[in-house]
Amino acid sequence: MPGEFNLIKRYFTNRQNQRRDVDLDIGDDCAIVRVPENSRLAITTDTLVAGTHFLADANPAWVAHKALASNISDLASMGATPAWCSLALSLPKVDEAWLESFSAAFFELADYYNIKLIGGDTTKGALSITITVHGFLPNEYALTRDKARAGDWVYVTGSLGDSQAGLDVILNPENRTRAFADVLEQRHYLSTPRVLAGQSLLNICSCAIDISDGLIADLQHILDCSQVGASIDVSLLPVSDELVAFLDGDKTKAQHYALTSGEEYELCFVVPSYNRGALDSHLSHCRTPYTCIGQIRGKEGLELHDGGKKLDWQLKGFDHFGGDDNE
Amino acid sequence: MPGEFNLIKRYFTNRQNQRRDVDLDIGDDCAIVRVPENSRLAITTDTLVAGTHFLADANPAWVAHKALASNISDLASMGATPAWCSLALSLPKVDEAWLESFSAAFFELADYYNIKLIGGDTTKGALSITITVHGFLPNEYALTRDKARAGDWVYVTGSLGDSQAGLDVILNPENRTRAFADVLEQRHYLSTPRVLAGQSLLNICSCAIDISDGLIADLQHILDCSQVGASIDVSLLPVSDELVAFLDGDKTKAQHYALTSGEEYELCFVVPSYNRGALDSHLSHCRTPYTCIGQIRGKEGLELHDGGKKLDWQLKGFDHFGGDDNE
Repeated sequence: MPGEFNLIKRYFTNRQNQRRDVDLDIGDDCAIVRVPENSRLAITTDTLVAGTHFLADANPAWVAHKALASNISDLASMGATPAWCSLALSLPKVDEAWLESFSAAFFELADYYNIKLIGGDTTKGALSITITVHGFLPNEYALTRDKARAGDWVYVTGSLGDSQAGLDVILNPENRTRAFADVLEQRHYLSTPRVLAGQSLLNICSCAIDISDGLIADLQHILDCSQVGASIDVSLLPVSDELVAFLDGDKTKAQHYALTSGEEYELCFVVPSYNRGALDSHLSHCRTPYTCIGQIRGKEGLELHDGGKKLDWQLKGFDHFGGDDNE
Repeated sequence: MPGEFNLIKRYFTNRQNQRRDVDLDIGDDCAIVRVPENSRLAITTDTLVAGTHFLADANPAWVAHKALASNISDLASMGATPAWCSLALSLPKVDEAWLESFSAAFFELADYYNIKLIGGDTTKGALSITITVHGFLPNEYALTRDKARAGDWVYVTGSLGDSQAGLDVILNPENRTRAFADVLEQRHYLSTPRVLAGQSLLNICSCAIDISDGLIADLQHILDCSQVGASIDVSLLPVSDELVAFLDGDKTKAQHYALTSGEEYELCFVVPSYNRGALDSHLSHCRTPYTCIGQIRGKEGLELHDGGKKLDWQLKGFDHFGGDDNE
């Protein structure tokens, strides 16, 4: 059946408006694009594999959202403005209903952020999705991981822990009877990349990272790169009412979830004291909820406390479905 | 065994010199890069899947070369100068011998073209390789597919047909006894992207494409985009002595191979009459062998002839191992 896979192209061609910085998109050997003056390019690639990052029979619209949102989140965590993406899609067979749903959700999210699909590849193979996204950064600024200093404050956007609860529902059907199981399952797939927040933090923050491996693991990346430590007050961790209800009101357990839940795609960021006012003003414009959860210390290591009372929680990191992956 | 896949990163980190246009590479949420003034960016993505584009037990060094070379070839066919790439690698298990061989060959080719690996992802899954490469193009020029005009001349670089013969050897062990079987198998995997040739054709050529689907299919893309036809003299097709010997001296069969063999990664390009002298002078500098094989006509359709004698060959297009793929 050679050529059958050409059908797939239909779902991904001529679905979007043109961007003026795209001289050539799908249809030649390469796309040709232009980067604005005084700008740099932020580039990131993520692969989602069925069985590791989502179940093969998951809602294709949710899978498309998760695949693209996780990439956009990487741009957000640098403060970059999304511009273009490429999509490499491997499918075991041509399933038109799947493709219809996947592509519709893909373009809905891409269009929201004005991201133009400029190329890619469709191949026969085990179900997997690799996306590379490109965004713009000014020449002078970027949110990296290596500039946290003792005394700076640690913040997160949104609420944490819902993604892990959603995964509990997906992996263990008995959890479907718990409160808000459906809502949390959906939140696992349908995260909101914090693009506006990232952009508005660009010249205010010392550091930022998106929470993909869990707060503890991702904050540790900042601490390692900056050679500092941090003190986090778990009583300040933002957790949703739905998560607490799902966990039968167990607040401590909700805090554990908030510390280790991965694939949240919220931002964790660090702000010097003198910029806390500017932060309030900037983030209020983009209506992103955010919470201060602790402070950077000179001494290395991550210390957890509960309103001042030291904790010695030993927490297991976030794991994917497959239990063996590096991202 | 969470974290085992982190081992993979070792093979792909700190293996290359820095490029001055890379502000940040592997290790943060995104890479940050700079595009030179007065330049545009050419971007292309290709996926190679075990079983479709190579056999799972193929020499990993050859697989790495093929995966990267096929992408670089897309840059070459636009006339672009390679700059950066990202690599998404899915592996069923961590096989250190495989990774050692794959990564060494990957970086050997990348270093030759000064291509910096700036990011990617490693996941557990069926063996597949997705690479996105970025290259620079001047603001004014690019080799596209839509500017061939009646009277222009059609050329190809190198020789054609060897890749198909190599595939014959890989797929049918009985062909191993044929003349030059080993050489041709190796040529299938170890093509030379025509980067220098592409660059030197930038303001001389009307059109160019790299031969990945077979000469007839790829030239047809140029004809379709330019709304013209062409006349090709099969007696002019460049075929290697090894191919002719492999085919027991059957020159006609060698011409069939030259017309349909895919994954050659030679360039097919179109030059106006007034630039034929400039072409000779430019390509002699980069020592790329090239041959004029025919001419563009105003009338649509692709006509084959043998030194003037019309042919009505019905040729089957190139197919991958798996027989069902769009590239």
